[in-house]
Amino acid sequence: MPSYLSEPDAGRRIMARCDELGRISEPGEGVTRLYLSRQHKVAAETLVAWMTDAGMDARIDEVGNVIGRYHSQAGGGPYLVTGSHMDSVVNAGRYDGPLGVLTSLDCVAVLNARGRRFPFGIEVVAFGDEEGTRFRTTLAGSRAITGQHGDDLLNAKDENGLTMREAMAKFGLDPTRISAAAHRPEEVIGYVEIHIEQGPVLQAEDLPVGVVTAISGQTRAMVKLKGAANHAGTVPMGMRHDPMLAASEIALAVESIAASHQNTVGTVGVIKAEPGLINVIPGEVSLSLDLRSQVDDVRKAAYAQFAAAATEIAERRGVGIEIDVILDLESCPCAPAFINQLDSAVEKTGLRAIRLPSGAGHDGMAMSTLTDIGMIFVRCKDGVSHSPQESVTAQDVAAGAAVLLNFIENFQRNT
Amino acid sequence: MPSYLSEPDAGRRIMARCDELGRISEPGEGVTRLYLSRQHKVAAETLVAWMTDAGMDARIDEVGNVIGRYHSQAGGGPYLVTGSHMDSVVNAGRYDGPLGVLTSLDCVAVLNARGRRFPFGIEVVAFGDEEGTRFRTTLAGSRAITGQHGDDLLNAKDENGLTMREAMAKFGLDPTRISAAAHRPEEVIGYVEIHIEQGPVLQAEDLPVGVVTAISGQTRAMVKLKGAANHAGTVPMGMRHDPMLAASEIALAVESIAASHQNTVGTVGVIKAEPGLINVIPGEVSLSLDLRSQVDDVRKAAYAQFAAAATEIAERRGVGIEIDVILDLESCPCAPAFINQLDSAVEKTGLRAIRLPSGAGHDGMAMSTLTDIGMIFVRCKDGVSHSPQESVTAQDVAAGAAVLLNFIENFQRNT
Repeated sequence: MPSYLSEPDAGRRIMARCDELGRISEPGEGVTRLYLSRQHKVAAETLVAWMTDAGMDARIDEVGNVIGRYHSQAGGGPYLVTGSHMDSVVNAGRYDGPLGVLTSLDCVAVLNARGRRFPFGIEVVAFGDEEGTRFRTTLAGSRAITGQHGDDLLNAKDENGLTMREAMAKFGLDPTRISAAAHRPEEVIGYVEIHIEQGPVLQAEDLPVGVVTAISGQTRAMVKLKGAANHAGTVPMGMRHDPMLAASEIALAVESIAASHQNTVGTVGVIKAEPGLINVIPGEVSLSLDLRSQVDDVRKAAYAQFAAAATEIAERRGVGIEIDVILDLESCPCAPAFINQLDSAVEKTGLRAIRLPSGAGHDGMAMSTLTDIGMIFVRCKDGVSHSPQESVTAQDVAAGAAVLLNFIENFQRNT
Repeated sequence: MPSYLSEPDAGRRIMARCDELGRISEPGEGVTRLYLSRQHKVAAETLVAWMTDAGMDARIDEVGNVIGRYHSQAGGGPYLVTGSHMDSVVNAGRYDGPLGVLTSLDCVAVLNARGRRFPFGIEVVAFGDEEGTRFRTTLAGSRAITGQHGDDLLNAKDENGLTMREAMAKFGLDPTRISAAAHRPEEVIGYVEIHIEQGPVLQAEDLPVGVVTAISGQTRAMVKLKGAANHAGTVPMGMRHDPMLAASEIALAVESIAASHQNTVGTVGVIKAEPGLINVIPGEVSLSLDLRSQVDDVRKAAYAQFAAAATEIAERRGVGIEIDVILDLESCPCAPAFINQLDSAVEKTGLRAIRLPSGAGHDGMAMSTLTDIGMIFVRCKDGVSHSPQESVTAQDVAAGAAVLLNFIENFQRNT
């Protein structure tokens, strides 16, 4: 372990607990721990016990989040909230979510062991539902804490037709008491999350951690291209109106448009050809767009370029086009004061501070409606997440813990 | 009806019989008349009756083809064979196949009414299985006539697991007697088929008929491109190895390579992305190639260009590539003497003769192993086939019949 870490063993401790939490899973490959499941309950009870051991007042809240409070010097709040989520996708890894919860928990344990308290308390939170795997709704846990939980979530159904409302009752929660999970703005002074990067930038930069500038905004759209299905052998090339070729040009346009803007990515993840036969020119091809940027104006400009390019391509090829925007989500910037203090914490840890956007969504998006947010990314192998192959090193995890500890120890409100 | 037609009503007569045969179908939209089905039997018996009325000796042969012989002046063969197929795809139109059978039948009826016979006989054939819809094997009818029918066909199963052998027995045929369907080379002096074009060239040229130069050879391949599935939000554009973008470039390369060769077409009809989620960079994309040309050397050169381009694209993008050739079928040229005589027949009918390749396969591919072949295409609306929307005009059908009649009346062996 490098000498810059005051807690060189933190990495191994945190990873051991990620392993332990990871074993609380449905059977099968990887970790499957869905919101309001039996595994969620066991994991939540485990976290309450660990938080209590670390000197916190801990409980499961009204929607199934775990909340542990390490009080201020004065014996209460306000609280600097830190943590991440405890739910997973199906066949997940052990670190997406739990790493942030258990790093936060370890930092408090260290502070508690050293007898250190601050003018503010620290609240460690393990959100119950970030991934949205079970009910196809995301951020239910953090939305409850920010007072934005309502019927749209409660009425969502899982694949067995059980509503979130019914599942909460089965879990032992009272769905009429959700509003009690909401935090008052004056009891919260910020939210800081550690999370694996889920991307390859830190690995490419050979750095264990990075400071997040913003959670990127997203535009998602489906493009439908209509030609006329015809025999692959009988229509000369010059007489074709082939939606597959229009789709191909559009996919390449997504690439070049995204590449022409800073911190912007564009992806075609879905493509479908009808009738999808080897000897038939497709009559219809659908493809998806996922466009993200940390700057909303950039994303909107890139989307306009995309729509213009797609329309031009379709018209030139004599193919019909319909573009249906299905998601338009504003970016969520991290607070400049938090970015600066996290930079300082990285440098105090003895590392080079780099900043990068988060292309993935996080609980911070909900928390930002309540308080300032900041995020630290920890390098993960090859950027892989949502897979049992998710991998981090103890050294990188220790670096993340050191940054969080430095950040807390030096935290200045309202800078 | 234009004055150049000696039988101006032939178009209406032939189309009326296409309608009548089209009603012999499984229930549902369009025509569904599969090999060795009950509908096949009814249609075959109908054709035997019509052929007999037209002065032919007619029978259902040992594999379910209908054979009608209009004998020579001397009272027998050899025979100029003409016809097409009587089976259909699912939800087909009324003309793909039956048009050629019923035009040939009408020509013989006209000759019979005029009391005209030739030094050669005319054999009208309705092949039982060209499409291969039921057993996924094509040309079973014409392969039996050329002596190429064997266990590979007999053991083929339909979707209910019934073999062709079992289906023949149910139909009332003896599968051990197939070889009796084979024609001796010396009893056949040629094969001429009328078929709808199944393409848009004649419509674009504003011509009712065209003379086929060759049935194109085909190369079919599946291309598998392998990257690494990753989060659509977190991987910068410059760090991606996205098989979707490689597939897009490859599809466009197919277009430009095919367009750079005469009478060559290339199609990507199948594309599949895994995992196929809007927010995931695909880990694997598969796409198909269907490449056709009337000249085998051209097709082989185009395929080599395709393989080189696809490999270059994949390597440049850091994506793995596997190309699997699943079909490599040589082209089947029409006999020059038949092409010339068909040209003359078109001109005698008062029309401009144009030549075009057949991008689709036909029974002539099998028949060419036995004898010289020629083909006449009749214009069909928008090139549509394999659909209830298949459409021809009575005037175009009459023109096709006039060309066939002129061809027969002026037929010269061994020119």
